[in-house]
Amino acid sequence: MAGPLDLAMLDPAATAPFLTKDEAAIRLAADAKAIDALQDRLYAEGTRALLVVLQGIDTSGKDGTIRGVFNATGPLGVTVTAFGEPTKPELARDFLWRIHAAVPRRGTIGIFNRSHYEDVLVARVRSLAPALEIERRYDHINAFERLLSDSGTTILKFMLHISREEQRQRLEERRSDPEKRWKFHPGDLDDRRSWDDYMAAYQVMLDRTSTEWAPWTVVPSDRKWARNAIIAGVVRTALERMSPKYPDRDWSGPEFAVP
Amino acid sequence: MAGPLDLAMLDPAATAPFLTKDEAAIRLAADAKAIDALQDRLYAEGTRALLVVLQGIDTSGKDGTIRGVFNATGPLGVTVTAFGEPTKPELARDFLWRIHAAVPRRGTIGIFNRSHYEDVLVARVRSLAPALEIERRYDHINAFERLLSDSGTTILKFMLHISREEQRQRLEERRSDPEKRWKFHPGDLDDRRSWDDYMAAYQVMLDRTSTEWAPWTVVPSDRKWARNAIIAGVVRTALERMSPKYPDRDWSGPEFAVP
Repeated sequence: MAGPLDLAMLDPAATAPFLTKDEAAIRLAADAKAIDALQDRLYAEGTRALLVVLQGIDTSGKDGTIRGVFNATGPLGVTVTAFGEPTKPELARDFLWRIHAAVPRRGTIGIFNRSHYEDVLVARVRSLAPALEIERRYDHINAFERLLSDSGTTILKFMLHISREEQRQRLEERRSDPEKRWKFHPGDLDDRRSWDDYMAAYQVMLDRTSTEWAPWTVVPSDRKWARNAIIAGVVRTALERMSPKYPDRDWSGPEFAVP
Repeated sequence: MAGPLDLAMLDPAATAPFLTKDEAAIRLAADAKAIDALQDRLYAEGTRALLVVLQGIDTSGKDGTIRGVFNATGPLGVTVTAFGEPTKPELARDFLWRIHAAVPRRGTIGIFNRSHYEDVLVARVRSLAPALEIERRYDHINAFERLLSDSGTTILKFMLHISREEQRQRLEERRSDPEKRWKFHPGDLDDRRSWDDYMAAYQVMLDRTSTEWAPWTVVPSDRKWARNAIIAGVVRTALERMSPKYPDRDWSGPEFAVP
């Protein structure tokens, strides 16, 4: 069944709805500014949160997205959590334990740089857990995200979709550019060798966990400028729908006069 | 003894070294950009951290400083921790417990919006702990900051210094402006009535805890534009002295060829 989340049908080099880099840059600047203003209201309102999940294969641009989309929003009221290989204390609990501990507090935007989805991606490709357990995780994830959603957290999930050739170029750049060499991990080459397995795992993830309360957006990410503008647009729209308001308080009484 | 940190001698409306708002804005923009670039190297290097402590009486501009100075740096690699009234689990431990848990990890900048200094400020003014215990806290703080410093964390502490009249205006604004009313807390009026006690507590804090390894800067903060530019300058200089470097790695061997 070819749906809107069928990876094989989605071109990683697509840039729609933007035709040019300039057009995207103008829109991104406007959206980033709007996101900043909406975040301010979200913080003032203090009753709801936004969770942005970023997933994508190595070099797909998770860090770059955070810089590109959220730099105008600044660190106040925005928290980034990067999930690496689980530590021993983390492995001693269920896979959602460390995730739950990091959910954004009310009034803030939380960004997950990788997430609980690693536990159905790398875990599936490298068989880090029994197949039956991984099968169950999709349902656990949906239930967990439902809890967050019911508790006032809007969830947006982005899969940054790049082509195999684009990844090759980016890895080559990391190998050779002195300012990027620190980002190169030889282990990434092993993951690259499992490219097809990863794409299959991503497809299952999309099929099983794109829900009404926590939808996936597959973002064509070969063009960084299109990627950033597309994501900013989705984030802005979500915040506008949440429509946070400055709380309506009345401090006009004489008991509140400033001495 | 009138030293460089004698509050009575420091004019909260000073703007030096800046003569005009435009001049400060130009410098701030350049410094913020430089901080962003240096932060990127700090992150890549991954061995040291920067801790920025912001203290100041209500309305002194702690949030505004974070927006003004660090917005260009974005949320990636910068973590803001706001310390409010301690919770029960926090009160069940020593006063540095929650602070230690929040120190920035290597490679990042941590910003404390209020800090362990509340435990010698509000705690002193409102007698929230026995006098002897508060006396001991200054030494505990110095030892704790020494530990951080010895472990690779550069510490910068800023006291945002505003005048009593400036606070009056800002509180009035919060009472009446619909977009600022959510920031108004009636309790702030009580603190305002204790203005002189707070200033005395700040002075003791400056005298006892400005150390070689964790110096205080008193920032004249009646003019927000001067405040931001002054702080950005100090932060930039500190990062330049740290001089973080991209790690020098060699991935040129054939075993690292991208498949």
